[in-house]
Amino acid sequence: MSDRITIDHGSGGRASLELLQTVFLAGFDNDILNATEDSALITINKERLAFTTDSYVVDPIFFPGGNIGDLAVNGTINDLAMRGATPLYLSVGMILEEGLAIDDLKTIVATMRKAADNAGVKIVAGDTKVVPVGKADKIFINTTGIGVVAKGVEIGGSMGQPGDKIIISGTMADHGITILCQREGLAISGEFTSDSAPLNKMVEALLAKHPDKIHVLRDPTRGGVATTLKELAISSAVGINIKETDLPIRADVQGACDLLGVDPLYLANEGKLLAFVAPEIAEQTLALLRQQPHGENAAIIGEVVADHPGEVVLETVIGSRRRIDMLHGQPLPRIC
Amino acid sequence: MSDRITIDHGSGGRASLELLQTVFLAGFDNDILNATEDSALITINKERLAFTTDSYVVDPIFFPGGNIGDLAVNGTINDLAMRGATPLYLSVGMILEEGLAIDDLKTIVATMRKAADNAGVKIVAGDTKVVPVGKADKIFINTTGIGVVAKGVEIGGSMGQPGDKIIISGTMADHGITILCQREGLAISGEFTSDSAPLNKMVEALLAKHPDKIHVLRDPTRGGVATTLKELAISSAVGINIKETDLPIRADVQGACDLLGVDPLYLANEGKLLAFVAPEIAEQTLALLRQQPHGENAAIIGEVVADHPGEVVLETVIGSRRRIDMLHGQPLPRIC
Repeated sequence: MSDRITIDHGSGGRASLELLQTVFLAGFDNDILNATEDSALITINKERLAFTTDSYVVDPIFFPGGNIGDLAVNGTINDLAMRGATPLYLSVGMILEEGLAIDDLKTIVATMRKAADNAGVKIVAGDTKVVPVGKADKIFINTTGIGVVAKGVEIGGSMGQPGDKIIISGTMADHGITILCQREGLAISGEFTSDSAPLNKMVEALLAKHPDKIHVLRDPTRGGVATTLKELAISSAVGINIKETDLPIRADVQGACDLLGVDPLYLANEGKLLAFVAPEIAEQTLALLRQQPHGENAAIIGEVVADHPGEVVLETVIGSRRRIDMLHGQPLPRIC
Repeated sequence: MSDRITIDHGSGGRASLELLQTVFLAGFDNDILNATEDSALITINKERLAFTTDSYVVDPIFFPGGNIGDLAVNGTINDLAMRGATPLYLSVGMILEEGLAIDDLKTIVATMRKAADNAGVKIVAGDTKVVPVGKADKIFINTTGIGVVAKGVEIGGSMGQPGDKIIISGTMADHGITILCQREGLAISGEFTSDSAPLNKMVEALLAKHPDKIHVLRDPTRGGVATTLKELAISSAVGINIKETDLPIRADVQGACDLLGVDPLYLANEGKLLAFVAPEIAEQTLALLRQQPHGENAAIIGEVVADHPGEVVLETVIGSRRRIDMLHGQPLPRIC
């Protein structure tokens, strides 16, 4: 490992995992953190709570489909929902660069409020720091969330079982391609929109129907679907097979990815979930998802197998099979 | 108000309050946030929890008496304790600048772990982002904490009552002067040490003895004792009188303040609390505080009065009286 922090350490791929393991898990080392779920599961006087934090440094701070503010609210709500929790309260910590236009800040705050209202959560705690010009980039936002986990709900990255069907709740790579195109100043950039959205109501609908047959939920943000599936194959000690022809990708997104030389499997999503569900409820779950807001393009993309534990195998369009690894050697800075 | 963010907005004084009111409270607007306590008080299925967030951007990141890591852990623990809560869990969100030495990061993480262990809390959730060189300054840390508030504990900034004695748990301005001297590269800088320390066990001891006669607890961080007392005078709608001769300040700290032209009343403390207590327990509380770690220099510095509500009046060494306002027009960037 390098002796300095590199952009790669923040991309959500293999270098991020290495940093997590060698520095953070090694240093903080406790069972709750070591579970490395989207949310920590904590128990206070018998109440099971989910607790999660994320900092947002996206560049640009305004983009089609949202801004850093609703991205930060939705992202933390989703991390709570991926544990099967009902999100309740958020804190907001802002680091502002001297010179930021207060009107921009007001716009961001208004968007955060709207996103919170939309998801039924309250922003109850906050903090603001200011640093001199050139010591930050406009605005960084940390959101930390608390949710409550209902009795009987046991969803986690280690719960995947051979036979499970793998569902994605909609098209892939929309957030990642939107940010990349904006940043590259591409003429096509106007065509794309971030998928930033809260998924808690979608998860509620799933759990209301099949509380015990939804095994894994995870939102494929930094590192994309590929990295998330690889992590889940490892944490559940199972194999994963996906089919390229089943992956829902908008044709124009695929075209832009080809142009930029990036693989949509590795691009961030900010309003999509992956679900591993018992095979007998797969079709029903798919139908249910397609009725939900943000779920109309849901698709079954693969299955969990007992073979090749820890590995993700993609069956390509031409029928060949290749192993999918975590994001590696293609750093995508400040995507969220 | 300026239409751009200025350093003053982050100093914890009057400009910070203005930003809080006109942007954050106006935008997020709910009863819990509007209380503007050190911690939000939330209720989840009858369980009363304290919830608080703080981002740390201190410069330099290593200083005598600590580093940005234990400062971040102790600071959030203290914000929970000031609500009478027992701190339980913390999250840590890091924003790293490309190029940060991983050894420095490991040192910071180890210090955070030690501070958490020392206070009996667990770091259970985390997130790390990396930004390119020049887009942040080495490392920024957000810590967010959850604690549980015991039945019957009702401590808050609006609970101050005429007659209350005002106690500070130790000497003033130690953190602020340490950071300022480090940053100015003064030869005297080696003589000072930040007071960064967890106060939760001190608060536990106070509450064990007099659960209902401790009315207000607040740690005077950014903006110092002056700004904190002014805020409390307003939120409790009471007057506050303090005596300059009773303020515990180390002679060398006072000397450095004189040299730098800053008033120790406005410098940050990171391991001190202000307590407003019923007069009949003031002497006992003082004695108890002096037995606690970090409490040996505790002192009674004033009292709450019915006169001049919302105002803090200082009786000076020479017996004259002057009104104390919030920090204003003396921006102290990145003190925590």
